[in-house]
Amino acid sequence: MRAAVVGGSGYIGGEIVRLLLRHPHIELAQVTSERQAGRPLRVSHPNLRGQTDLCFTREEDLSPCDVVFLATPHGTSMRSVERWSGLAPTVVDLSADFRIHDPERRARFYPGPPPDPAWLARFQPGIPELNRDGLRGATHIAVAGCMANAAILALHPLAAEGLIGGPVVVDARTGSSGGGRTPDEGSHHPERSGAMRMAKPHGHRHTAEIEQACGITAHMSVTAVEAVRGVQVACHVTPSRTVTERELWAVYRKAYGEEPFVRVIRERSALHRMPEPKILAGSNFCDIGLALAPGGDHLVVVAALDNLVKGGAGNAVQCLNIAADWEETAGLDFVGLHPI
Amino acid sequence: MRAAVVGGSGYIGGEIVRLLLRHPHIELAQVTSERQAGRPLRVSHPNLRGQTDLCFTREEDLSPCDVVFLATPHGTSMRSVERWSGLAPTVVDLSADFRIHDPERRARFYPGPPPDPAWLARFQPGIPELNRDGLRGATHIAVAGCMANAAILALHPLAAEGLIGGPVVVDARTGSSGGGRTPDEGSHHPERSGAMRMAKPHGHRHTAEIEQACGITAHMSVTAVEAVRGVQVACHVTPSRTVTERELWAVYRKAYGEEPFVRVIRERSALHRMPEPKILAGSNFCDIGLALAPGGDHLVVVAALDNLVKGGAGNAVQCLNIAADWEETAGLDFVGLHPI
Amino acid sequence: MRAAVVGGSGYIGGEIVRLLLRHPHIELAQVTSERQAGRPLRVSHPNLRGQTDLCFTREEDLSPCDVVFLATPHGTSMRSVERWSGLAPTVVDLSADFRIHDPERRARFYPGPPPDPAWLARFQPGIPELNRDGLRGATHIAVAGCMANAAILALHPLAAEGLIGGPVVVDARTGSSGGGRTPDEGSHHPERSGAMRMAKPHGHRHTAEIEQACGITAHMSVTAVEAVRGVQVACHVTPSRTVTERELWAVYRKAYGEEPFVRVIRERSALHRMPEPKILAGSNFCDIGLALAPGGDHLVVVAALDNLVKGGAGNAVQCLNIAADWEETAGLDFVGLHPI
Amino acid sequence: MRAAVVGGSGYIGGEIVRLLLRHPHIELAQVTSERQAGRPLRVSHPNLRGQTDLCFTREEDLSPCDVVFLATPHGTSMRSVERWSGLAPTVVDLSADFRIHDPERRARFYPGPPPDPAWLARFQPGIPELNRDGLRGATHIAVAGCMANAAILALHPLAAEGLIGGPVVVDARTGSSGGGRTPDEGSHHPERSGAMRMAKPHGHRHTAEIEQACGITAHMSVTAVEAVRGVQVACHVTPSRTVTERELWAVYRKAYGEEPFVRVIRERSALHRMPEPKILAGSNFCDIGLALAPGGDHLVVVAALDNLVKGGAGNAVQCLNIAADWEETAGLDFVGLHPI
Repeated sequence: MRAAVVGGSGYIGGEIVRLLLRHPHIELAQVTSERQAGRPLRVSHPNLRGQTDLCFTREEDLSPCDVVFLATPHGTSMRSVERWSGLAPTVVDLSADFRIHDPERRARFYPGPPPDPAWLARFQPGIPELNRDGLRGATHIAVAGCMANAAILALHPLAAEGLIGGPVVVDARTGSSGGGRTPDEGSHHPERSGAMRMAKPHGHRHTAEIEQACGITAHMSVTAVEAVRGVQVACHVTPSRTVTERELWAVYRKAYGEEPFVRVIRERSALHRMPEPKILAGSNFCDIGLALAPGGDHLVVVAALDNLVKGGAGNAVQCLNIAADWEETAGLDFVGLHPI
Repeated sequence: MRAAVVGGSGYIGGEIVRLLLRHPHIELAQVTSERQAGRPLRVSHPNLRGQTDLCFTREEDLSPCDVVFLATPHGTSMRSVERWSGLAPTVVDLSADFRIHDPERRARFYPGPPPDPAWLARFQPGIPELNRDGLRGATHIAVAGCMANAAILALHPLAAEGLIGGPVVVDARTGSSGGGRTPDEGSHHPERSGAMRMAKPHGHRHTAEIEQACGITAHMSVTAVEAVRGVQVACHVTPSRTVTERELWAVYRKAYGEEPFVRVIRERSALHRMPEPKILAGSNFCDIGLALAPGGDHLVVVAALDNLVKGGAGNAVQCLNIAADWEETAGLDFVGLHPI
Repeated sequence: MRAAVVGGSGYIGGEIVRLLLRHPHIELAQVTSERQAGRPLRVSHPNLRGQTDLCFTREEDLSPCDVVFLATPHGTSMRSVERWSGLAPTVVDLSADFRIHDPERRARFYPGPPPDPAWLARFQPGIPELNRDGLRGATHIAVAGCMANAAILALHPLAAEGLIGGPVVVDARTGSSGGGRTPDEGSHHPERSGAMRMAKPHGHRHTAEIEQACGITAHMSVTAVEAVRGVQVACHVTPSRTVTERELWAVYRKAYGEEPFVRVIRERSALHRMPEPKILAGSNFCDIGLALAPGGDHLVVVAALDNLVKGGAGNAVQCLNIAADWEETAGLDFVGLHPI
Repeated sequence: MRAAVVGGSGYIGGEIVRLLLRHPHIELAQVTSERQAGRPLRVSHPNLRGQTDLCFTREEDLSPCDVVFLATPHGTSMRSVERWSGLAPTVVDLSADFRIHDPERRARFYPGPPPDPAWLARFQPGIPELNRDGLRGATHIAVAGCMANAAILALHPLAAEGLIGGPVVVDARTGSSGGGRTPDEGSHHPERSGAMRMAKPHGHRHTAEIEQACGITAHMSVTAVEAVRGVQVACHVTPSRTVTERELWAVYRKAYGEEPFVRVIRERSALHRMPEPKILAGSNFCDIGLALAPGGDHLVVVAALDNLVKGGAGNAVQCLNIAADWEETAGLDFVGLHPI
């Protein structure tokens, strides 16, 4: 299958390229960047030195292919969706454009014009664990946001069992790569290094995805901490009824026991008994752990992932693997490093 | 006033020494360390090179003085409290031994034997902003825990006004120096660097102090993030009634408007509009900020401080300044660095 | 081919395990750890969760296999070399025991007893770029030290051409994982974080390997900087005669143009125009760059690698691939991440 | 004495402001910033919250005062030097404009037009340890560059004794704050975090200052490592004759034994036996250590300082203290933190 990546000089774009170059069923044919057009990929992605002779092309120079990945800024995908659909039978969008289906919810979080409803309806939510059936044979896929994906995977099993009583506090911590490639005051190393910066105390856009997928109310705050890759969410849940930890483990085992990329972490004493993003860098895993307060009135569910992989490019490839009926783990076999 | 520091080779002990060496009304006379006895202070505290010729002494060699600071492991202060009280008329304890007054609450969080009730009753809570009157002329002071202090300063004004409806989620993030000086697997750099490690999802001992000081129920989780110094707490509060942000600012201004070391941060657009510990390293400030969700049903209060200063040694010196009727800011004039 | 890893709970051991689990021609059969015997590998290596059901075994429980990797402390390999050789026809040693051949040089850097000369003579130096022919069919391989390998790859082409005039200053900077898994005062996060600690101003043992491989005099200093993985060496060379940069590039192209894992970096303006270890984490690349001072009297050659991969486990696998006549890159296809 | 700071919104400017606000003999009267004019200082320097009510003014609104500090980009000071000299009898310049006296040397490192020779001649080199007599009563002071200052303090005692034989390799490592406040691709956190980036293999401008002050040839390379504040130089020296370490210590003790801000570190076994910048953050110390190779043919001298303090603002204040005949340490009493 021949693939094109639009917006390939950014961080998410670079990860798609990295994964596709090693994918057994994909031939990476074209990668666009308006700014870097004509230059080799390694200029933006030094890790790819010696891996490919491809150079960036302009969007206008794209030729038809089998699948196009859109790693473009929000708003871009929906503006040109007809063009992308004309270019390739399968479109995998990593922007937020086709994620939110309810117009009122969308309007609350995204001030700009909404996507065309007919196009919106064609896009399948790109969360394999929740929508594997919908993804089989899908031609349009809207990959979830990084922190949203972590929180959804953490909370959905509870929500599906009706175990969430009242609003959930989602305290998210994130590395700097989620902010993209463009330097600004907040990403300036002297300011960002060692920070604990609550960039968004409430109202983060990913809240919309969590609420949509889980049918709950979420109070989400986002704190930037020292890391480049990695997202961790601590979800503070008031159980809707008395539960035991044993019962909760069963809920998660049922939900994810067969999942190739969700690992429910249940260790008693190890150092890494709760999920940590750093050992997931480069991998497509989402690790999930939980702890119920002794009184049973407060539950913490923690999820961690690499925002550029399971929170973006890797999840996109996993979705495509399902859509194309390949083995779901194709091209996604890197397990992560320790120590790192 | 002549001072002694017991347990002076640890990180908190080192900070007390650093502050006392520059204190206008204190002469630092003795610093104990069983392990380093006989060696110069700079061996443990390289920042103090050239600042003092003092060497560590053994506890048994202590001679009477005017004030003794106890920077010893939990359990040590109460075992020898008679000895310390005999040694100096003023005892400032930085351990947890004399912090919790209700026996039932103490038993829940501290499994060991409780302190003698008569001694316990003599200790004043070492939180100047809540107990300034009690500290005046005090002879026994129990300095608050680092994360507890941050959370208490964040939440007490709301609690005092009856604005807290239901349990509060206290999501604390902490640097590595809070864990003390002894290396272990969790503090080993390859494991700890860049971590987001939820070391304690619930039940942290500092919860007891928060509940005691504020009269609320707190669900506290503690995550170790990449930093050496610094504590940040994000307190997620459900207001007990409809409030406006304006009203909340007034509450905090009333509580802290005259405080020398609590800064209520109210900036509209700056990068640092929420409190960040890194710019507080070495200073005695606790910065507090807040954000009310548009719907008014969720309030985030964030506090940040340097765990070794306002969360320990600096707070201890501030308490002593009040007890001794000196200017409250004596010896605490370092304002912190930016960038850092 | 069935493989065993001795000393598998350490950082180098964990990397060998990670690589062998994905190696197309290897079945990982046994991994030893005296301390963790009986427990699953994931206890020491959380990145391997879900990748294997293997548990650590004791050395005494090892059964014969085809290849044994020794990731044991220096001194251990040579003490039991007969045992390892009896256990498997191929022995790959990652310790320093069989690296230094000249007794006088060894005595200068390694105070303990030397290895048995007969055994020492059987070991091939594990540097594929210098000794590929020697490695073909080799049964005993002594993999190079991490910083030594970087410096040797940086300097050998110059040395081979007689371009090095006088002693070389090798200024090495290293992450913390090179110090191994055991916590100590120096690896304690509050001390190690953000450090620039010249741990070894001269006399580092890896000097012996550099001098042996390149036939030069090296003044090597080692500074610990903030990183977990990664080694960078800045080699300051006085050219033996007038050279041009063009000529130097030709020397390196000739040496490494066909090498699968050495990349000579020659960029004019990019941010990453000199080798940086961080984008190499997890990969088996050694990147090399150079800059000649305008006057031509001073040449800086910089090399970077991941100390646990090209500086250890990956290099070991590459050597085995050559020895076993497999494709040299088998199991080593991870290209590294950017950003990270 | 009333002071003005020109260019007060940058990092060096912020440090001058921080120091002057606590200086016993200075009243900080005016701070300029063209971009932030009219806004309070805390907008650029959040550490100064609550410390001052000053707002930034425009340069054109400056009124006469007693001393003006120039923390402006290179080239700005010399363009307006008449204006500054008219504004205040004492001018302290932190840019490079008036540092290099030999026109040929200047031309090699600074391509633009040179300063007016008459003005240049009035400026005293701002290195108290080398030029204390020249600084007494000085009206024009050119403060040294951060890495230059470290290297000069490391090497000058040797140079003065004729102990340097041949070119010196100065391997400098630097934090990110030295690059100033403007974000760019290289300072973008995902790229800069954890970097070991040899930004300048040779030809760094600070070389000119080192060669001028010490009368030697220096091959200087600069590597950006993970840190915000802090510079460390490793100077690799070939001694001109046989020396002992004892003799070398005597040389440094003679040079710096009475210096308030240079500490010669001579520890046998401590963790911090070589100078490290992190414990110097915020302080005005330059720590110096050395190690002679057993053969005596190679000497490493290491110096560390905070680039914004002893490498800039603090050094400037120290120079002024000398010029104004105040106690030399006035306003510079912060000793640095440990751990940090």
